[in-house]
Amino acid sequence: MMYKAGLVGVTGYTGMELARILAGHGQIRLAMATSRSEAGRKLSDLYPFLRGLPGGDVTVSNSDPREISACCDVVFLAVPHGVSMETAAAVLRSADELGKRVKVVDLSADFRLEDPKVFSDWYKVPHTHPELLAEAVYGLPELNVENIRKARLVANPGCYPTASVLGLYAALKNGIIDPDSIIIDAKSGVTGAGRKASVQSLFCEVTDTFRAYSIGGRHRHTPEIEQELGKIAGASVTVSFNPHLVPMRRGILATIYARLTDGSDASSVQDMYEKTWHGAHFVRVLPAGQLPECRFVRGSMFCDMSVAVDERTRRLIVVSVIDNLCRGASGQAVANANLALGLPVWEGVDSIPMVP
Amino acid sequence: MMYKAGLVGVTGYTGMELARILAGHGQIRLAMATSRSEAGRKLSDLYPFLRGLPGGDVTVSNSDPREISACCDVVFLAVPHGVSMETAAAVLRSADELGKRVKVVDLSADFRLEDPKVFSDWYKVPHTHPELLAEAVYGLPELNVENIRKARLVANPGCYPTASVLGLYAALKNGIIDPDSIIIDAKSGVTGAGRKASVQSLFCEVTDTFRAYSIGGRHRHTPEIEQELGKIAGASVTVSFNPHLVPMRRGILATIYARLTDGSDASSVQDMYEKTWHGAHFVRVLPAGQLPECRFVRGSMFCDMSVAVDERTRRLIVVSVIDNLCRGASGQAVANANLALGLPVWEGVDSIPMVP
Amino acid sequence: MMYKAGLVGVTGYTGMELARILAGHGQIRLAMATSRSEAGRKLSDLYPFLRGLPGGDVTVSNSDPREISACCDVVFLAVPHGVSMETAAAVLRSADELGKRVKVVDLSADFRLEDPKVFSDWYKVPHTHPELLAEAVYGLPELNVENIRKARLVANPGCYPTASVLGLYAALKNGIIDPDSIIIDAKSGVTGAGRKASVQSLFCEVTDTFRAYSIGGRHRHTPEIEQELGKIAGASVTVSFNPHLVPMRRGILATIYARLTDGSDASSVQDMYEKTWHGAHFVRVLPAGQLPECRFVRGSMFCDMSVAVDERTRRLIVVSVIDNLCRGASGQAVANANLALGLPVWEGVDSIPMVP
Amino acid sequence: MMYKAGLVGVTGYTGMELARILAGHGQIRLAMATSRSEAGRKLSDLYPFLRGLPGGDVTVSNSDPREISACCDVVFLAVPHGVSMETAAAVLRSADELGKRVKVVDLSADFRLEDPKVFSDWYKVPHTHPELLAEAVYGLPELNVENIRKARLVANPGCYPTASVLGLYAALKNGIIDPDSIIIDAKSGVTGAGRKASVQSLFCEVTDTFRAYSIGGRHRHTPEIEQELGKIAGASVTVSFNPHLVPMRRGILATIYARLTDGSDASSVQDMYEKTWHGAHFVRVLPAGQLPECRFVRGSMFCDMSVAVDERTRRLIVVSVIDNLCRGASGQAVANANLALGLPVWEGVDSIPMVP
Repeated sequence: MMYKAGLVGVTGYTGMELARILAGHGQIRLAMATSRSEAGRKLSDLYPFLRGLPGGDVTVSNSDPREISACCDVVFLAVPHGVSMETAAAVLRSADELGKRVKVVDLSADFRLEDPKVFSDWYKVPHTHPELLAEAVYGLPELNVENIRKARLVANPGCYPTASVLGLYAALKNGIIDPDSIIIDAKSGVTGAGRKASVQSLFCEVTDTFRAYSIGGRHRHTPEIEQELGKIAGASVTVSFNPHLVPMRRGILATIYARLTDGSDASSVQDMYEKTWHGAHFVRVLPAGQLPECRFVRGSMFCDMSVAVDERTRRLIVVSVIDNLCRGASGQAVANANLALGLPVWEGVDSIPMVP
Repeated sequence: MMYKAGLVGVTGYTGMELARILAGHGQIRLAMATSRSEAGRKLSDLYPFLRGLPGGDVTVSNSDPREISACCDVVFLAVPHGVSMETAAAVLRSADELGKRVKVVDLSADFRLEDPKVFSDWYKVPHTHPELLAEAVYGLPELNVENIRKARLVANPGCYPTASVLGLYAALKNGIIDPDSIIIDAKSGVTGAGRKASVQSLFCEVTDTFRAYSIGGRHRHTPEIEQELGKIAGASVTVSFNPHLVPMRRGILATIYARLTDGSDASSVQDMYEKTWHGAHFVRVLPAGQLPECRFVRGSMFCDMSVAVDERTRRLIVVSVIDNLCRGASGQAVANANLALGLPVWEGVDSIPMVP
Repeated sequence: MMYKAGLVGVTGYTGMELARILAGHGQIRLAMATSRSEAGRKLSDLYPFLRGLPGGDVTVSNSDPREISACCDVVFLAVPHGVSMETAAAVLRSADELGKRVKVVDLSADFRLEDPKVFSDWYKVPHTHPELLAEAVYGLPELNVENIRKARLVANPGCYPTASVLGLYAALKNGIIDPDSIIIDAKSGVTGAGRKASVQSLFCEVTDTFRAYSIGGRHRHTPEIEQELGKIAGASVTVSFNPHLVPMRRGILATIYARLTDGSDASSVQDMYEKTWHGAHFVRVLPAGQLPECRFVRGSMFCDMSVAVDERTRRLIVVSVIDNLCRGASGQAVANANLALGLPVWEGVDSIPMVP
Repeated sequence: MMYKAGLVGVTGYTGMELARILAGHGQIRLAMATSRSEAGRKLSDLYPFLRGLPGGDVTVSNSDPREISACCDVVFLAVPHGVSMETAAAVLRSADELGKRVKVVDLSADFRLEDPKVFSDWYKVPHTHPELLAEAVYGLPELNVENIRKARLVANPGCYPTASVLGLYAALKNGIIDPDSIIIDAKSGVTGAGRKASVQSLFCEVTDTFRAYSIGGRHRHTPEIEQELGKIAGASVTVSFNPHLVPMRRGILATIYARLTDGSDASSVQDMYEKTWHGAHFVRVLPAGQLPECRFVRGSMFCDMSVAVDERTRRLIVVSVIDNLCRGASGQAVANANLALGLPVWEGVDSIPMVP
């Protein structure tokens, strides 16, 4: 049996990546894709790489939430924050009215922050569905698998939080670092900037250069990172989070600095990380002396990480790498959908990283 | 049941790509990988993206042909021309001695040219195994599927010939172009230059620039293209073949020019191409007005093509695109192995193109 | 004494490149820059690389043609075709009314085609100033220096025509090729696509891929190439011109094919090209056996070219390379302005190619 | 009058960049270039972009130090550390013997660290010329102009130290940060990895990815940064320095974190930086709210920087950007040569950044 998926907002990179992943998924097929600007076009005309492949023949529609609920078992929301919360609410309400179970995985930020006031402070719009906020489950499979399995609404994590939280998990859980000393210097590929027409993201403005942005504690992923790290640490955490743009398509590399609070050394930290992540499907702790690279996780769900101790300054340095589009967005969304539908987490998202 | 594959020459890009494809193959697993320079290392240390994946734990060895034959059902040769013919002969001889069926897929040029004199003219070494040359099957699945199924030794086509021959097939078969008017202006990604340490292929020598090479009928793929086109045309064919290097990793785009010899127009040529390739697994003729791009076949077996007629000059222009590393080398090698082993051609090589 | 330049349309890549070149020009300084969308901003805020440099303090304005004429000795028009002809006319009329000599260099296509009917056929708008068309001088300095020196209105050549016409000049002039056998397979960097916000030119749509466009005799530079080649050949010329997009910022490489009509061989063609271009400031014929690359002319006025003879097919193959933005647009415009103002052609445009 | 320059070690990227810069220098011309591997070739054959330009006709030689001293007024050493100190000593000794003033600018690390023990600890070779170490002047023109003017031997700073030291200068000088809280997260273009043939720096290993290297206080630029920061702070400084590799050719961006020790806010820090660098030729403090990018200094001597205060964590964040090859190596070397020869610091190195 194939589950039917709806994809609300197919024109962005996360929508494109969802279409790509579902084209190769053995248990979930794309049944409906919506977009205001592209309604009426066949998906394979919009995305020529899908010609002849599952989902390629879907006609992009303007379907409303009721039609989506009627058609689909799972709905992916790949629309901007603010819009997403309304669509989620409408889809879930329609499902109830139809007496149908529909799972919603929201790729926007709308259901990630537990406190609606924190949400509105950082995103500059009020949260209009706090009742759903209470119900939503934060979809980081490694940390939350049981809740995701039971969830009706999954808040798919941000890309930077995924890399940052996984990278810091073992150190914070084991209490070896000062939670207020954390600096996350993150670097992202350009798909992270979205697929809107803008001069800033033109090839000739981005290639062969490098830049920082949202420096100084202003990026919206900051409170999400702090929220999730706080849960792990069991205490409030304040981080310096500073993102940069790399001339590559996919990938995030986060270099994370924190002050060690005990006598940990390179070897003990390496052991701790290896033990913590032993048996994890999608997390690979590299052997001592190796460093992760964005290309080695390209197109996959892997989070590769390495740890180092700077003995001169007694700092822990974690380098954590994901594919921002797959693990940091659409792949993780499909993994969450898998769990919510009762499928194995890896179904359809166990592809081999594409190197070179 | 899983077939066991041997990979002779794992350090180049075609070796890497074979390892990548086999890691996701459900019926063939990598059992042995050889390299003189890297013997003793685990494959996942050489290629960190394979950590934890099928094949990643294989230890690179120095195994000789007898050991390879004893272990494997199929052997991929990813070593330089000249070396390959000796290895093929030794592997097949060992298999005979062991009374074992072993299939060999050779990714070098050693068994592509039917005439050993043409081979030695262009490759500047004598052919030491003409008896195998006579037996070898040219492995372009669309044109030769029955022979490949029965073959013991498959000559895997060159990357440029794959794109060129598929692109011209319909026109030549149907006799609408002058076979002596063909110009192939081809552009390849940098994996085509191989993985040897060389200043010429350094990032800073290749990025943000573009160049031609082997201009004027000097590239070694020329006789291979002419041989295969000649078979289709049923007459000798002479082409101008001129390659270029594009600052991208994967992909070949061939722009092919030929003089129309009859009254064909855009619409009749479009029809002819669509009919010719109707039902083909891996060839996609684009609708009139669309043009193929290298990214739309990235990591896949697809050959995407479009046709145009320049009415002002009465020329047919075919644009033919493949992934040089997958379709143009290792993916096609696995497809040929599939056929030779009695598996469906698409097994393990039906991955969705990775866009973006 | 410094001449004062006006730049109409500063927001595109040709405008940006003009600002860059003039910042380093010892005899012409940017005195006025206009743009509807950016009026009121300082140029160094729009283009941060100009901070602290000549021209960086210019405030982008909405100035009308009269103000421009009053202020400037030379005006560069870097606005779309159709708009440019009106601006040129207004600027020149204002100059006349002010009793002032003002030189206009138009970077659009508006004054390149001598026949207004050809213009309107290809550009789909009528030509509203045929009287200026008659007066305009085609600004390819190597072929037209005396006329440019005397011109009031210079039509700056297109990027593809610059590379193509220079590449074919020697062969056509000397009558060694069949003028109706010419195929130009051209490849351009992405600055050629302009600086408008568009999904098609986003980094993630363009990097690590390659594509053809306007295949089959549909690109608007075709008639311009034919017009200029026709003048050289002294007969009408019809070419197949087919452009491609390379993931690099700057550069055009044109691979040009033509049938030899006499007994020319590699050595005689090499001699002919070297003799023809001996002493040229900005054209470099490479020694036999070397091939040009886009990076070797980056940021410069050079047109590098090489010639080969494919003896198997008796075709001449010329590879001609320029920087599309400098030689193919703004650098050539400044060279033309130099000539029109009585300065040496190389003034301010003799910069060393930037490698790596 | 033109000064004559010798370039020892022309085959690397710093050698290439020196040749490029000197080709456009009005007062210093390349008179001699040496290389063991390329001796006998014309420079324009090695570097085709130099064809027809000043220096292009120089024949690469195997000249010994005495010949170099006899010929040249200034000698640039672009050879590996360890080798450089011997060459410097020999050149200076020959000059003394000839009774000639010769200036030496060493681009290696050999004379940067004042303490030979620190040198040998980090570079794993003994320092064989401590007497020259005592005489050598650290060539950061902004901090050391008078000494450079008088120097016979200039130690050209490392690329990372140049960006880091300039970025931290104002804050440390004014005592607003804790000198032991400094973290420098640096990102470099690939020219920084040199021009040796190596698989690691091949296009296909570097493009479309991102990686860290020498993590955890192991990079050799660490002691150089600490030495120079210590001089500014007037106290010992220990930093966490962690470099990364960006898929671009030129550029370093350093994101620098430090804890504020007083009540400084964004506005006061901005003022302090602007005042400190007011009038500097090659340092541009960006207006509040703007962030530097590598492309905006491409090919130039500029160090662009911005400052931010993260009020949530009371950290100062400086983003400092240079072209690693021009400002971080060869351009700075020419600036130092200018000073040592009595020329203005900007002579021949005042080129406009090349954007796009």
